[in-house]
Amino acid sequence: MTPATPVSLRWIGEADGHLDILDQTLLPSRLEWVTGRDVDTVVEAIKSLRVRGAPAIGIAGGYGLVVAAGEAVREGLDPEAARAHVLARGEILATARPTAVNLRWAVERCLGMVDRLPRDMPADQLATSLLAEARAIHAEDHDLCAAIGQHGLAILPEGNILTHCNTGGLATGGAGTALAVITKAWDAGRRFTVFADETRPLFQGSRLTAWELVQRGIPVTVLCDSAAGHLMATGRVAAVIVGADRITACGDTANKIGTYSLAVLANAHGIPFFVAAPSSTFDVSIDTGDEIPIEERGAAEVLAPLGVQAAPAGALAYNPAFDVTPARLIRGIVTERGVIAPVSRETIRATLSAGVFPSPE
Amino acid sequence: MTPATPVSLRWIGEADGHLDILDQTLLPSRLEWVTGRDVDTVVEAIKSLRVRGAPAIGIAGGYGLVVAAGEAVREGLDPEAARAHVLARGEILATARPTAVNLRWAVERCLGMVDRLPRDMPADQLATSLLAEARAIHAEDHDLCAAIGQHGLAILPEGNILTHCNTGGLATGGAGTALAVITKAWDAGRRFTVFADETRPLFQGSRLTAWELVQRGIPVTVLCDSAAGHLMATGRVAAVIVGADRITACGDTANKIGTYSLAVLANAHGIPFFVAAPSSTFDVSIDTGDEIPIEERGAAEVLAPLGVQAAPAGALAYNPAFDVTPARLIRGIVTERGVIAPVSRETIRATLSAGVFPSPE
Repeated sequence: MTPATPVSLRWIGEADGHLDILDQTLLPSRLEWVTGRDVDTVVEAIKSLRVRGAPAIGIAGGYGLVVAAGEAVREGLDPEAARAHVLARGEILATARPTAVNLRWAVERCLGMVDRLPRDMPADQLATSLLAEARAIHAEDHDLCAAIGQHGLAILPEGNILTHCNTGGLATGGAGTALAVITKAWDAGRRFTVFADETRPLFQGSRLTAWELVQRGIPVTVLCDSAAGHLMATGRVAAVIVGADRITACGDTANKIGTYSLAVLANAHGIPFFVAAPSSTFDVSIDTGDEIPIEERGAAEVLAPLGVQAAPAGALAYNPAFDVTPARLIRGIVTERGVIAPVSRETIRATLSAGVFPSPE
Repeated sequence: MTPATPVSLRWIGEADGHLDILDQTLLPSRLEWVTGRDVDTVVEAIKSLRVRGAPAIGIAGGYGLVVAAGEAVREGLDPEAARAHVLARGEILATARPTAVNLRWAVERCLGMVDRLPRDMPADQLATSLLAEARAIHAEDHDLCAAIGQHGLAILPEGNILTHCNTGGLATGGAGTALAVITKAWDAGRRFTVFADETRPLFQGSRLTAWELVQRGIPVTVLCDSAAGHLMATGRVAAVIVGADRITACGDTANKIGTYSLAVLANAHGIPFFVAAPSSTFDVSIDTGDEIPIEERGAAEVLAPLGVQAAPAGALAYNPAFDVTPARLIRGIVTERGVIAPVSRETIRATLSAGVFPSPE
């Protein structure tokens, strides 16, 4: 039996319960959970990257609405006020981070469900309905990850894999996206080394991806992001696979800062570059990457790595959290519905309009 | 008057004095000097990057031989034993770091001078002769930096500059190499922002380059190395200029890890990519970059940034200190003798065979 995939979110109890959030900022040295009994705590956890990874923050957004309904119950709000409270908190949850599309997608899915409920439903029943929807999103994501891993296995070449940021169990409700493909290949008997970019500024590669892989017993070698070019030039990488925070109608993909550089380098070396993401990551309301808002974060992440001041007073910082990789640099996009390759408006549209896998809505 | 350029090395006293080495590993938070009275201390300072930068470690190598002669004086060695001691210590100094060619170049220049001295010269006179040669190397490097800055000004486009690692006063015996070009442009009245890659694993960009530029009053914005691609894609960089640790006969250039990635990215965006280095950085005994030994350093630099453990036990690290940028990606190499552009065996040979600037030997 393979070791369990790490879990980043868990709902404790029934609709009057709370959301446990694994504080990923403390990993790998400490394993502590944030108790989410109010929306402010959940929003803070999302903004501070205690929970991160596009699918995981979508799931957190869904559970966050249950927390919002719980607030309404505790405050004794009538059905109309409770509904208004959940809607208002939903907007705060949906905008906690601007780049990943899954967060808004999950919140809107839950609010759409609320919209179809009777207007006179009491707050506690609203919470129960929201918990069912949030759990469905969580369970579906688990299944999506498994399907992504399965589809990815078919296109991943033999040999060492380079990845960026964290796209595993911590980032999703299941085995991950890019990391699900990697672990699936390992479980299928392939043997290789995973090269994990450390992923400045927040070291998700060294802190989280390496931690997940060590737990799984898969060999992992961490490198500075800047060493990826030399690694490729010396012939040690068979493929690059990363996750995504938002993919446009044409296939342009926003992902963790540094992804674009990797894609340019992979193409310069003839190394296939893959993206793995569930179909909820697609935002076909926008055509190209130029329209994706890129979150810029605070200077301290750059100037004081891991809390240690490195730069002198007077130095400014440039800290975009994401960049955009144009579709032309992506060999294929692995989704739960199959692999989109080549990447084009047409192949994306065809895949997205196919029946939802694994369960019809 | 412009602020003084930082100094990284200073010889204190006469031939029986010692080498003061600014401990760059403590910058920018502390300004402390290592007292180099024995070769072991100098070698440790070179290996531990207390002094770093190809020209600066060359200068340290020269002064290190004076320290070696001082050891011979204190040990009361006769002329023959003193000479043997200096030669043996010279080999240890020359190999303290394998990639930069300036270190061996400086040591061999001094030992060549020793070889021309009378065999019966007492150790104290040997020390005096070596100090004169080391000081000459130091003074020449100071002038080389000024000439590099002047030549570079002619080819540097207007606009913001991106640089990598540290190539300023701390890395040389003068105003620097790439940073000399940047400060020369500023002093000539141009106005721009310097984007400084933080330069993992040792943060020379945020710790040293930002510190030098803040001291000079030149606006500096630090970014994670992985953000350079996005910075270029969003049109904020007019040119990239970096230093070099070794340049081969064909123009392939070894420099701090991450330089190669920058060069690939700059070329993908049509941004000119320049190297600045004194002619002592050329090693025409080797033809291409494949022959340059690439120093690999310890795992802790990657896994425990600034001394803080980031990765879990069980994770390995890949930590090449340098990479090689092929000549075809380099728009021009700025030397003290002029700018080599286009970069080819022929243009390199022509520049290197021209009269030495600034002083004939």
